[in-house]
Order: sequence, then structure tokens, then C-alpha cells
Amino acid sequence: MRIVIRGGTVLSSTGAVDADVLVEGERVAALAVPGGLAESWLAGADRVIEAGGRYVLPGGVDAHTHMEMPFGGTESSDTFETGTRAAAWGGTTTIVDFAVQARGESLQSTLDKWRAKADGNCAVDYGFHLIVSDVNDATLKEMDACVAAGVTSFKMFMAYPGAFYVTDGEIVRAMDRAADNGALVMMHAENGIAIDELVARALAEGRADPVQHGLTRPPELEAEAVHRAVTLARVTRAPLYVVHLSSAPALDAVTAARDTGQNVFAETCPQYLYLSLDDLARPGFEGAKYVCSPPLRPVEHQAPLWRGLRTNDLSLVSTDHCPFCFAEQKELGRGDFSRIPNGLPGVEHRMDLIHQGVVAGELSLARWVEVTSTTPARMFGLYPRKGVIAPGADADIVVYDPTARQTLSASTHHMNVDYSVYEGMEITGRVETVLSRGRVVVDRGSYHGSPGHGRFLDRALCQYLN
Amino acid sequence: MRIVIRGGTVLSSTGAVDADVLVEGERVAALAVPGGLAESWLAGADRVIEAGGRYVLPGGVDAHTHMEMPFGGTESSDTFETGTRAAAWGGTTTIVDFAVQARGESLQSTLDKWRAKADGNCAVDYGFHLIVSDVNDATLKEMDACVAAGVTSFKMFMAYPGAFYVTDGEIVRAMDRAADNGALVMMHAENGIAIDELVARALAEGRADPVQHGLTRPPELEAEAVHRAVTLARVTRAPLYVVHLSSAPALDAVTAARDTGQNVFAETCPQYLYLSLDDLARPGFEGAKYVCSPPLRPVEHQAPLWRGLRTNDLSLVSTDHCPFCFAEQKELGRGDFSRIPNGLPGVEHRMDLIHQGVVAGELSLARWVEVTSTTPARMFGLYPRKGVIAPGADADIVVYDPTARQTLSASTHHMNVDYSVYEGMEITGRVETVLSRGRVVVDRGSYHGSPGHGRFLDRALCQYLN
Amino acid sequence: MRIVIRGGTVLSSTGAVDADVLVEGERVAALAVPGGLAESWLAGADRVIEAGGRYVLPGGVDAHTHMEMPFGGTESSDTFETGTRAAAWGGTTTIVDFAVQARGESLQSTLDKWRAKADGNCAVDYGFHLIVSDVNDATLKEMDACVAAGVTSFKMFMAYPGAFYVTDGEIVRAMDRAADNGALVMMHAENGIAIDELVARALAEGRADPVQHGLTRPPELEAEAVHRAVTLARVTRAPLYVVHLSSAPALDAVTAARDTGQNVFAETCPQYLYLSLDDLARPGFEGAKYVCSPPLRPVEHQAPLWRGLRTNDLSLVSTDHCPFCFAEQKELGRGDFSRIPNGLPGVEHRMDLIHQGVVAGELSLARWVEVTSTTPARMFGLYPRKGVIAPGADADIVVYDPTARQTLSASTHHMNVDYSVYEGMEITGRVETVLSRGRVVVDRGSYHGSPGHGRFLDRALCQYLN
Amino acid sequence: MRIVIRGGTVLSSTGAVDADVLVEGERVAALAVPGGLAESWLAGADRVIEAGGRYVLPGGVDAHTHMEMPFGGTESSDTFETGTRAAAWGGTTTIVDFAVQARGESLQSTLDKWRAKADGNCAVDYGFHLIVSDVNDATLKEMDACVAAGVTSFKMFMAYPGAFYVTDGEIVRAMDRAADNGALVMMHAENGIAIDELVARALAEGRADPVQHGLTRPPELEAEAVHRAVTLARVTRAPLYVVHLSSAPALDAVTAARDTGQNVFAETCPQYLYLSLDDLARPGFEGAKYVCSPPLRPVEHQAPLWRGLRTNDLSLVSTDHCPFCFAEQKELGRGDFSRIPNGLPGVEHRMDLIHQGVVAGELSLARWVEVTSTTPARMFGLYPRKGVIAPGADADIVVYDPTARQTLSASTHHMNVDYSVYEGMEITGRVETVLSRGRVVVDRGSYHGSPGHGRFLDRALCQYLN
Repeated sequence: MRIVIRGGTVLSSTGAVDADVLVEGERVAALAVPGGLAESWLAGADRVIEAGGRYVLPGGVDAHTHMEMPFGGTESSDTFETGTRAAAWGGTTTIVDFAVQARGESLQSTLDKWRAKADGNCAVDYGFHLIVSDVNDATLKEMDACVAAGVTSFKMFMAYPGAFYVTDGEIVRAMDRAADNGALVMMHAENGIAIDELVARALAEGRADPVQHGLTRPPELEAEAVHRAVTLARVTRAPLYVVHLSSAPALDAVTAARDTGQNVFAETCPQYLYLSLDDLARPGFEGAKYVCSPPLRPVEHQAPLWRGLRTNDLSLVSTDHCPFCFAEQKELGRGDFSRIPNGLPGVEHRMDLIHQGVVAGELSLARWVEVTSTTPARMFGLYPRKGVIAPGADADIVVYDPTARQTLSASTHHMNVDYSVYEGMEITGRVETVLSRGRVVVDRGSYHGSPGHGRFLDRALCQYLN
Repeated sequence: MRIVIRGGTVLSSTGAVDADVLVEGERVAALAVPGGLAESWLAGADRVIEAGGRYVLPGGVDAHTHMEMPFGGTESSDTFETGTRAAAWGGTTTIVDFAVQARGESLQSTLDKWRAKADGNCAVDYGFHLIVSDVNDATLKEMDACVAAGVTSFKMFMAYPGAFYVTDGEIVRAMDRAADNGALVMMHAENGIAIDELVARALAEGRADPVQHGLTRPPELEAEAVHRAVTLARVTRAPLYVVHLSSAPALDAVTAARDTGQNVFAETCPQYLYLSLDDLARPGFEGAKYVCSPPLRPVEHQAPLWRGLRTNDLSLVSTDHCPFCFAEQKELGRGDFSRIPNGLPGVEHRMDLIHQGVVAGELSLARWVEVTSTTPARMFGLYPRKGVIAPGADADIVVYDPTARQTLSASTHHMNVDYSVYEGMEITGRVETVLSRGRVVVDRGSYHGSPGHGRFLDRALCQYLN
Repeated sequence: MRIVIRGGTVLSSTGAVDADVLVEGERVAALAVPGGLAESWLAGADRVIEAGGRYVLPGGVDAHTHMEMPFGGTESSDTFETGTRAAAWGGTTTIVDFAVQARGESLQSTLDKWRAKADGNCAVDYGFHLIVSDVNDATLKEMDACVAAGVTSFKMFMAYPGAFYVTDGEIVRAMDRAADNGALVMMHAENGIAIDELVARALAEGRADPVQHGLTRPPELEAEAVHRAVTLARVTRAPLYVVHLSSAPALDAVTAARDTGQNVFAETCPQYLYLSLDDLARPGFEGAKYVCSPPLRPVEHQAPLWRGLRTNDLSLVSTDHCPFCFAEQKELGRGDFSRIPNGLPGVEHRMDLIHQGVVAGELSLARWVEVTSTTPARMFGLYPRKGVIAPGADADIVVYDPTARQTLSASTHHMNVDYSVYEGMEITGRVETVLSRGRVVVDRGSYHGSPGHGRFLDRALCQYLN
Repeated sequence: MRIVIRGGTVLSSTGAVDADVLVEGERVAALAVPGGLAESWLAGADRVIEAGGRYVLPGGVDAHTHMEMPFGGTESSDTFETGTRAAAWGGTTTIVDFAVQARGESLQSTLDKWRAKADGNCAVDYGFHLIVSDVNDATLKEMDACVAAGVTSFKMFMAYPGAFYVTDGEIVRAMDRAADNGALVMMHAENGIAIDELVARALAEGRADPVQHGLTRPPELEAEAVHRAVTLARVTRAPLYVVHLSSAPALDAVTAARDTGQNVFAETCPQYLYLSLDDLARPGFEGAKYVCSPPLRPVEHQAPLWRGLRTNDLSLVSTDHCPFCFAEQKELGRGDFSRIPNGLPGVEHRMDLIHQGVVAGELSLARWVEVTSTTPARMFGLYPRKGVIAPGADADIVVYDPTARQTLSASTHHMNVDYSVYEGMEITGRVETVLSRGRVVVDRGSYHGSPGHGRFLDRALCQYLN
């Protein structure tokens, strides 16, 4: 199978060049100046994609998704099949999902269980991080084997006592291992122990509406946890990656650490850039649609997060895609905000939403590619297979129309969830054609992918350390 | 002319891929996976460069050189001919030099004068920044024309009262223009007014040795000037680029500004990474060889500078190449350190010295390319013509042997100066072959370039703003 | 002359005690627990002041006034006679005014000139700082003599080019002397060179209203100058005192310096705590009444200044009293804000306005005494003669009714100026009786002082260094 | 009983005055200028203390002692009797000790138990803080009653899991109460959970010497805990007091909080100013003598702590006096550093050791009084009863000879412990006479006190809030 993408503007994390791209089989075979040489490629081409006036960029890498994840007595509503298909629609050709260790379970069996969910079902390539919730001698030993097997990042929670929460001592032990085997430690940084007291007080006082979810998890307690994680990482010399950073003081803690040259990184998510506590405070139970953790913040936190993306104190954008239907799922928390399943849908819209930041002048075009594709690929050991259009790279390519207009809506999105947090939002720019490992999976509004096309990604160590 | 570079590891600012490179005429025509397709290129090739086990990287861009520059009654000892030849030897295929406005002279005539020195004499491509030392209504008006003519950066001095020094008021006026026309303001940031008092006191007290050059220009007075320049840039909304940053507190001032998202950038130079105040304090008049401004700093400033290169608070490395022979030139300051011509030779060794940082574990391979080529190209409006190996880019390419060993010495270097500040230093890695716009100018120890091959570069605005 | 102050609450900078105070002649002779012992004092008492329900506190020390000071072709409207009388009315029993060196004049003759204005005319004690505007070898030598003669603080201006402005080099030279002779360097910290460009641009663009005075002197240019002064003080090891600090970023610069343990201090003034840029923007020419430098700031700067008073990053409160009548004086700047004489009246209201901060919960009672009396006395070498009620101290004592109510107004104030910047402001608390060196000068609404009672204060070095 | 102290220099936290002091019964009756008036007091005086050439200062207040405290299966070796006698010898006339709640015990019974140990046995006045180690609904309710009963400060531990450790959730609950009832929350700030992992690893690796006590409790984990406590205090709006701060980064965390105006305070102890990790690393088991928590730090932490005392980021100096004999007690940890009882003797030497800082130029004389007496009195609700020599204050007075020389030694000290951490140290200055509530308890080398003279102090709320 040979595909030529012709006449487009090929984007990378440093800028743009006019070039034609030759795809042979699953990989990029060559890039060339338009015309001339590239003309010769057309002969044997199975498909020529005319990309004049279009961006040709490396497929998106979403490093934080939760497909069919059990949470609070229910399960996130996208399966690996529906979720990765939605990803493909949105120009994301790689996801890194989380396999969740249960107490008493081994990491290997955890991984097996999640592989079983995903294998044969994904529309695009996928990898896994491991959520470690049972830190013990056996688990620590297994971490090395996981790294060897291509699972090179381990997430822990400073929140959710009684569920995923691990103590500072357990963090120290896991970080010690990571410092040795080179793995990246990912952290959900909120002081869940303190938060639970604030939640208990709110409920005791009869404050039970969704907005209380936001008010009982103040930014200070996110910043505190970031600061603590940074300290533990410094003491153990482990690299640290803070997931779904949501607030200005938490960003300040990351910035301070990075200024010292410590290997500390953070991601934010589109919901923190575009939504706010005002959404959580929508009348009635509407706010439940916007319940995720960390919570949406007062609107004044958005500008610092955009700034963080510019300064690289926020290295990349993931979605933390973890959808729950409003009906039946979010409703579990009517009358008690603490029972609302935590999570928002988003895997489909990340590329568009951050491109909207380019349109609005928040980010440069090169930075768009960097935060959505190149850096996540490097951060999670996938470069240059992913994250760049270069000879030998997987042919995960998006042809993007920067001037098209679209309106986001649950009625048109492809995620398996009954509402959109961006309902009615107008976007400039739209994915036109998507290749996943050399196969056209989305093309001008129609879907050509299939479950099982996506393959498990055996990841290297982080390639982005300072 | 068709050249194929085969079997090498092609480097970019984000990583490495195995690829063959096709050069047609002056530009890169294509990159392809090794073998197969690239085999077909060999047919018509005038030259095939076997790059197995070698890095293939974009030619270096040295954004800070002073060829044949008048200073203190003498002139820097490298002409554009000798200096650019030495640059080529060292893998630097682009320089951006400084045209120096004299009081009363117009910017245009300044530029004409410097073009006259360089045109027809350079071995590699060159551009100019303008040093503005006479800020008046006419000069300000001319800035716009310069930008239109491809000179898009303007340097001012907070040091050297009576020579290049401009007042804070003049800086405000020039920054106002830059904020309007998009030019980048470059700053020599040392509080020259205060320094002159310290110098006067030293001389009055009979402290006249070269080391006094360092002691009378303390790091605090560099940091102060950086902080002041940052403030003036904030007030006027102009982007700021701090040249030859040398010390930890000055770096802190840059870091603080960058943390706020302000468009503030800084370069450092190899001499600040490898040499120190101890060199200035060498016995006798030997220290004069190491006199440059800002001065070499106590050795404990080196680690923070390497860290700054990792954190990107230092965006790139330039040389501030400004050689004066020890005999007859540096000797002008015997008995009075303030009369020693300021400047060091270095244009030839930048790529090697920073590669040595890779060997020592200070920087990653990708970061080496970024700070020596990609970022300077983007910073000064030369990307993607320079700074990357991509279809359509100028074929400025270095084939680098990462395992070769060499010893730096005045007896072997190609700069027109009678000593080396790195005399006897052993380096791992060496430039093997250099292409400048598709022409092999250096090849395994022999020089094939010629004066006049290098062309003037009409530069765009900075492409690296946050 | 023997006076007993009976039944009051005696305040100090650390708290309050119930005590009777015995004044013999000009000094405090004793303090004792109420009743018993103190009863015996009543026998020979010339006067017994019943202070039940009243505060008895050390007289205020206003370390920053400008009586009959030439400025912009006119002179501040309070003479030493009228100004010190107004001070006494307001509970301030010591002022430290500024003797202003003219270019070409010696410090001694400057001091003689100012002594001639003040001697024999003051209602309360007074000292002088020297404004140094002509830094040369002779001036520097004279500084030592001034210190020996009790003038131990020297002020310089980074603002007002062409008038008081001194260069960074001159500052270095003067700080060098101060580091040697122990004097305190006071600084008007605004970057006047940059400001003049902003002023010129405003006028060139036809923006000539009083509010432009504020807009052309942005807080950043105050903060920059503070930072620069701090750096020069660090390099020279001189103690630094920043006068009339007005803005949050300038405070941040002071805080950062103080955190390092450097001997850097700052005062603010009531106008920056209570008034704002909104006053400068009053309709018509009304804003001229509020023109002072640094200018009044946007209202959000007030809270940080109160905070700074609590944290001791602002060590004390002075008035920068420098009144100009609206009629004929302020009006000199109609049509050109840059010609409005800079300065506000205030010497009379400082004690009341800061007490109002106590009422509002901004400061503690002890801190009120500290910032208005004890610290200025220690800062300027007057302790324990001033700033405390203790055996041997000058009997400068205020009996203050903390519950009385008053309304500030030009119709009732005693300063020689035709308007009040606090017109109509309601205050809780009022001075009831004032002793200056053992003499009752104000008593329940009537004035008993006389010109010439006040004596020149020969000051020691700063007693407040870290 | 009437005592006159004549001819001395009376010190306060703001400076010195020459004054005579009259003591009537237990209190200060009056201060007067020397001679004249004071002569009349001599008539009925029971005792005249000639204080010429001496400092007369308020008795020391040591706000952190542990007399006869159970710890690790033993008990601190000073009883309230021996410990308060040693305090008196050293010029400390007030201690605030800690009553330690056991799990399951009520606060009231805790207090009763400690009152039973102290009442009738103390040589000087004493108060109690409560250590809360069992935070539950009943405890929280009792806090209010304790405050009403004069125990207005509550200490919690972030260290010692399994013993005193409380969770962040428990801290939040207790801080909530404190924010309501005005109590001061005191914190032992070390991340004990993380530390225990480092300790376990050290022991597992066979590192069991005393120096490991220091190495397994790095400064970062003190700083982290301070930062966390500061955050929890901010969220709950409680005032916070960090006990025995020992390291530079922990100080930085306090400084940052104080810069924002938050009510955060910290003490340090003489051992952190004078001793270091080198002492912990003394050969053999000698290091055990120096085991306390937080541990002694590398010597470079000392200068920042002295600086903190100057800048008031460290508000006062306490001793954390908690002696264990080397024989039999410290020896419990031979072969396992984690079993060495934590604590050092020191209550006797605080006044001398900090005066030594005055001699060395680290602190001013006024600051000596402030950090050892005035501020602890204000911080813990004892002013003006303690902390100042003023009419009505308790006559706790020290006559101090600033020029006497002494050598510290276990052979001469009065604490009930078999070694001195300051053995052989030479000090300039010595306590000459000590009054406790009007009674001479120490006089020129002989002891005149008695158990039971000291009374329990019913304390007010903190009088030192910003």
C-alpha cells in the first residue's frame, strides 16, 4: 500500500515546510520538496491525498484516557472500541490508557486484564500506564518487569483515600524503584486526606450540590500535593509527571521545581482551559456533567494555564477522557456530590480545542503540534515512531483543514456518552483525513477504521528528561 | 549537483531517525528511509557521502560574532573571510554578525559599510544584527526599513558609557519601535555606569591586573541590568533577547521573567560554560587572553548555566566570537586592565564544545541540535531555511563523528588569532564533512570552500515568540 | 515643671500597660503602677492630666516632610512654623525634614540654609536629612562631617533628571561613603529617565490631564528602581531606605531583598494607603490636588501595602508632607500635567489615619505605635530620646482618645494649604493632649505651643539595622 | 518585700535606657531615671541590687521544654524541679512545657496529669501547651475548654507515625477548631511517613550509627512538612507556629508564607545555631548525645538560621529541652539509631548562647531580649506579665554581666543530665542575679529558690498575630 500526500504544509514541533509525504505500508517512507521527485511517487501510489491548503501533521497522542474504567460502582461509558474510534475521528492516533491495579492483584495480571479489554478492539494504537494502588515488595519487583515489557510509567494517587490512595511512604518506595529502573512516576496530586475532611464537613452541613465538588477541593490542596510529590521525587531522584494539572498555584509549584532543573513535568487538559467552576455551578443537577478531579476551577485559572503551555511548564495536553453518561451514571450522585462519578468525555476534541488556541493567538502552530503529539510521544517513549512525520515513523498522519468551521455537540460527536461539555461551541479548523499506521481511517466525514487495527505499543523510557 | 548522504543518523531538535538525505543543488530535496527508495537517488548523484555511524545534523547557526570589528583602537583579528572559514571548519554554516552604528551615522550606511566588508568574502551564509548606539528620531524611523530589508534584530548596550552605551530613555524609545515593527531587541546587559565607578576605584587603588576586569564587573551588576531590561521590555511590550549571559543571578532574572510568560530569551557562550575567573587570574599578563565582557565568572556559575540550557531559560549558545591577538592587541592593556580589548576567539569550537556537554551528560543529543542550530534559526527568522534538515531547507549539513577524539589548540585551529582559550582541551567528537548550501566546504580535514560562496541572509522576524 | 499623666493606658511598640507617667522638666522621670507610689507625685505637680480611657503614647515621628521647599518654580506652602504647628496638632512631635543641596553648593551651606529656615520657628523638634544632588569629591568628603554633626541620612533621586537626579555611578560613590561612615542612604526610587520618555510621548500625543501623571509613572518603573538601588546597596554594602514606597511590585522588590537579610528598609505614606489613581482621574483639573511622586496607584495596591506594614517589609509610615495650594500652585500645571508641583499635604493626619487602620483591623495597637513613632526614632538615630515613653526619654507624649470621632477637612485642619486630600473623611480617634519635651502644646482643642520651642536634633546612626 | 535595682542599663526589645527599677512584692512597681526620685525608694528597700555596668532585662521565657516526658520507653531526665531550677540558673524565669495526650485520654485528664507533675515543684513560673495526638470529636470539643482555662496552644506532630503522628485530615479538623477559638496551632513539621521509609531502608542496609539519624531525615522532608502545614493553615485560616525549625529550606517555606502576610511563625533552638551533623557523626556512639528531631544539620544551615532570627522569619528561640542521660538512656539505641531517645539538654544555656550571638555580631542587644523574652511572652499570651520590665509586670528580672567569661560543662551545669552538648564552649556574658516574681532565686553563684515558688500560668491568646 502506497499513499502520497501532496501539496500540503507539513508541520512539526519547530515549524512548517511545504513537502510531499510518501507512505509505504505502515510507515513514512520519504518526504520531498513538492513536485519533481515526488511526482515519481505517484506512479505506484494506491492513493493520492491532495493536501493543498491543508496542514499535514503527526497524529495526536493522547497520553491520558480511561476507557471502560470501573469507578464508583459504574464504568466509564466508552469502551476501547468506541473510545479509540472517537479518538481517530478527532485526529488522535495513539492513546495511552491506564491499567488499574486492584488491591491484592499483581501488576502483570492487571496488565493482562486491561490488554484483554483492549486487544482486538482498538481503532488506533494504544499503550498502557499502570496505576499502582498496592505498593508492596511484590509490586515493586514487578515494576522492573513492566518496564522491560514496555509499560514504562506508573501512576499513583495522593487522592481518593480508601480507593487508589497511596501513602507518602509508598510513594517513596515506588519512586525509589523508578529512580533505579528509569520509569516515569505519574501523580494525581491532590491532598485527598484533607479533602475528605472538607467533603465530610460540607455534607454534614447539608451542602450537597455538584458545585460543592469544586469548593471542597481547593487549588491550595492541589498545589500542596504537587509540592509534596516534587519533594519526594527530589529526595528519591525519580522523574515526576503531574497529571491533569488544573490550577494556578499547582502550576506555580511545577514551575518552581522546573526552574531548579528537576525532572518534573505536567500536563493539563482542555477542560481546564475552556471550562470553569461556573459550569459546576450550573442550576439544578446540570453541574454533575462537569464533575471531574481535580475540579474545574474559577475562570481566572485559565490564563495561567495557557501561559504554562507557552512557557513549557505545562509540557503537553491530554484529555483525562473518562466519560459517564448523565443519565444513570452521573445521576448516582444526586443529593450527594461525593457520589457523582468523576470524569468528563473529551478524547475526540483535543486536537480541535488546542488548535482553537492557535486561532485565538494563545499558542503557535508549532507549539500546537508539540503539545498534542511530539512531546507526548517523547515523554512516554514513543518517539520517533509517533510524534513526528519523518522517514521510518509510523504513518500516523492528520490532514487538517485550518479554516473549516464546526460546532461541537453530543448530537454529532462519536464518543459513547449522552452529553457534551462543549455543547454548541464553535471551532475553527477540522480534521479532514486521518491515517493510522498507513491506513486511512477517517476521510472527509466517513469512517474507514476497524476494531483491532490498533496495536499495543511497547514503549521505551521517557525521552524527554532534562 | 546532486549529493546523497547515506546511512547516517539524522538529528533534529526532537530526536534522531535513520534516514538518507538527498541534496539537489543548494537545497535538501528529500529524506527517506535507508535503502529502497534512496537507492534510486544514487544513479544521478555527483557525490555519495557514506555516513554510517555518523550524525547528520543541520549546520550550526552562530548568532553572535564580531568579525573585523573596531574596538578600543584596534580591530578584531578575524576578517569575514578568515572568520567564516573557521566557522565552516567547526560545522557552523551560518553566522549573524553585528553592524555597528557610529554616532551620527545612519543605520543604512552602517549596514552598507558592513555589507561591504562581508559581501564576497564569506565562506558561509551570514546575516546582520544592527548595533544601535545613536537613538534619535531618524534612527528610529530607519529601524522599520531595516526590518523590511531583513535585518530584524537590534542590539543595544547598557555597558560601555562613552562608546556604545544608551540610556534607559533611549532603550524605551527603541523598544517602542520594536514593539511596533516586530523586531527583536538584543541587550548587552551590564550596568556600565556603576561598573565604571568600580573600575575607576580599582585603578585609583593600583589594582590594574587582568583579574580586576572580572572583579570590577560583579554578577550583581549583570543581573541588575537584565532585570532592568526585562522591565523596560515589559513596559513597552517589546520582545527581549539577552546576549552572552554569564552568571547565575543574571540567569535567575531571565528565569523569573520567563516564568511570567514574557517574551524574554537569553543566550550563553561556551566560554562561560568552560572557563572561569581562575583563567582571568592566571599569572602575569596571561589573564588578558581571557578578557571579555561580561567577564568569566567564578567556577560555581557554570553548573547553573548548564542547567539553564536544559531548562530552556537559556535558549541557545552563541560564541560572541571577537578575537584579538595576544601580541600587540591584548597587550594594549598591560598595566591597565581597562584597556585590554574585550573579546575571545571561539567561532570554530562551538559545535564541538557543546557536543562535549552531550558526552558529559549535561545535554541530550536533541538539545545539542536545538541550542546550536534549530533555536538560533527560529530566534532570528531563518527557519526552516536554516536549523533543520527538511525538504526545501538550505542544504547546510554537518556529518559529525561522535566518537573521534581531538585536542583543541592554536596550532591547529583556523581562526586568525595567536592563541586558544581552550589550548590542550580534549574533545570527543569531530566535524567530518560540512555542506553549505549544497556545497561540500569541509571534508575529512581538507577545506573546499571559497570566499564569496556565503550569501547575505534576508531574515524574517523572530519565529520563536511565546 | 512637673506633670503627672494619670490613669491612662501607656502604649509601646510591644503592647500596653496601665501606668502613671511622671514628667520632670523636658523628660520622662518615671513610670509607675497606678495609685500608690504615683500618688506621691501629685504633691509637687504643676499639672495633672487625667488620662482614664485614653491612650498615652510616645509622640509621633514623621521622618519625611518638606517644609517651604522650592519645587518647580514655587515653594511648598507650609513654612517650618505652620508645618510643625500642624504636626503638633496631629500628635507628631518630631519631624525630619530634607535640606536640599543645589548643584554647586556644599552640604554644609545647604544645611546652614535649611537650619536658618527652621531654627527659631518650629513648634516641635526637628532634624534634617540631606538631599545630595551634586555628588563630587568635595560632597563625598563632607558626608563624614555631616554624620559627625548629627545629619546621618542622605537622600538621592533616581527620578527628576535635570533636577535632583543622580546617576548610578554617583549613587555607587555616595553609597561607598555611607558604607564607611555608617550613614543611611535614602532613595527616591523611580526610573526617571524612562519615565521622562513616557511623559514626552503622552504630551506629544495630547494627553495632558492630571491622570497622565499616574499613567506615565507605572509601578514597574518604581519596582525597577527599587531593585536597582537594592543591587547597588548590596555591591557597596550600604544600608538602604526606600522612601514613599507606593506599589505592590516595588514592595515585592523590598521583600525579596529583606528576605536575604540585606539592610533594606522602606516607608509608605498614608496617601498610598487611602487614596488611588481614581483620585488622580477626578474630573476637570481636580486630579491635580492628588499629584505626587510616586503617583497614587490603582486601588488594588492598597491591600498589599497594609500587608507590608504588618509583615514589617514596610517598616514605618511617613507623610512626604509637601503641600501646594490648589489655587496658583497646582494650577501651574493646567494643560500640562508635568508642570503640576508634586506633593500632598499630610503631616497633620498621619497618627489619626494609621489609628484608623487599627480601628479597621489592619494593624494592632502596638504596631500603630511602632510604625508611627518607635521605628522612625530607631531608624533615624533618635531612640530612646524619641519613640518610647521611658525614664530619661524626651517627654514627647500624646494623650489619645480612641473613641472620639472627627471629620477631616480643609476648613478645620491647621496646615497652610487650601484643600484636603481627605476632605470629609470620618475618623475614629483623636489627639487630645500633646506634650513636646515636657510642654503641653496642644490641649483639648487649643494650641499652646510657640515657634522656637522645637529644637534641632543631633541624630545618631541608624539603630535599626539587621 | 521591696527591692531596688540601681544603676543598670534596662533592656527592652527596642533598646536600652539607664533606669532604676522598683520592685514591690511580686511586681514591678516603677522605673525611674537614676538618682533623684529613685533615691527615695531606697528608704524602705529590703534589698538594693547594684547593677552598674550590668544589663537589667526581663527574665527569659522558654516556650518549649519537656520535663520528665515519657519517650521511647524512658523519660526525660530533668524533673520539673530540677529542670526549672536549671532554667533559673540560666536566667529563664518562665517555661511553657508540653502536656502529652495519650491515645484514648481526654485533654483535661492529660492536663491534670501534667499539672500534678509540675504543681508544687517548679522553681519558676510555668505554663502548658497541649500535645494533641488523638483528634476526635471529644478532643475537639475540649480544645475550647482548654483555651478558656489558659492553655491556648496545641501541638501536633507530622512525624512519629505510630506514636504522636496525626494525619492531614486530623490536622484540618484541629485547625478548624483553632481558627474558631483563637488558639495557636504548633507543629512538629517533618514528613514522618516518608522518613520512616528512609529509616527502614537504612537499617535494612546495615546503616545503624547515630549519624544515620540525620541522614534519614533530610531537610527537604522538614521543608515539605512546613509547606504542607502552611497550606492546611491557609485553607482553615488558623494561625500556625512551627517548632524547632532546623534547616534552610524549612526556613524558606516559612519566609514565603510570611511574605504573604499569613500568620505563620517559627522558632529555632540554640542547638541548630551552634551544633551540626558533624556532631552526630562523632566517632563511636558519641553521636548519640546529639540525637534530636529534627536532626542537627550540615553546618551551612547555621548562617541562614541566624539570618532568619535577624529578619524575624524566626520569631524566637526556644530550647526544646528534653535531656536523656548518655548512660542507660541514649544507650538504648546502640546498634539501632532509631531507638536512641530523641532530645538534648539546653534549658540552662539559652540566654547565654543567644547573648553570644550578640557578642559575635549576629544579633543586636534589643533583638536578644526580643527573641528570648518579649516575643515568646507575646506569642504565648503572657505579655505584659512576662517579657518586659514595666510597671505592673511580674518582677521576673535578670541582672546580666555582659563581660564575664564562663565555660559550659556538664561538671558545672545544673541540669540533671550526665553530659553537655556544649562541653568546653567559652561564653562571654553571665547571669548574675535572677528575680522570679520579686524573689531573688539566683544571686552571684548561689541558689535561693525553692520548689513550688513557680506558679501555673493561665495564658491569654497569642498577642503577636499580624
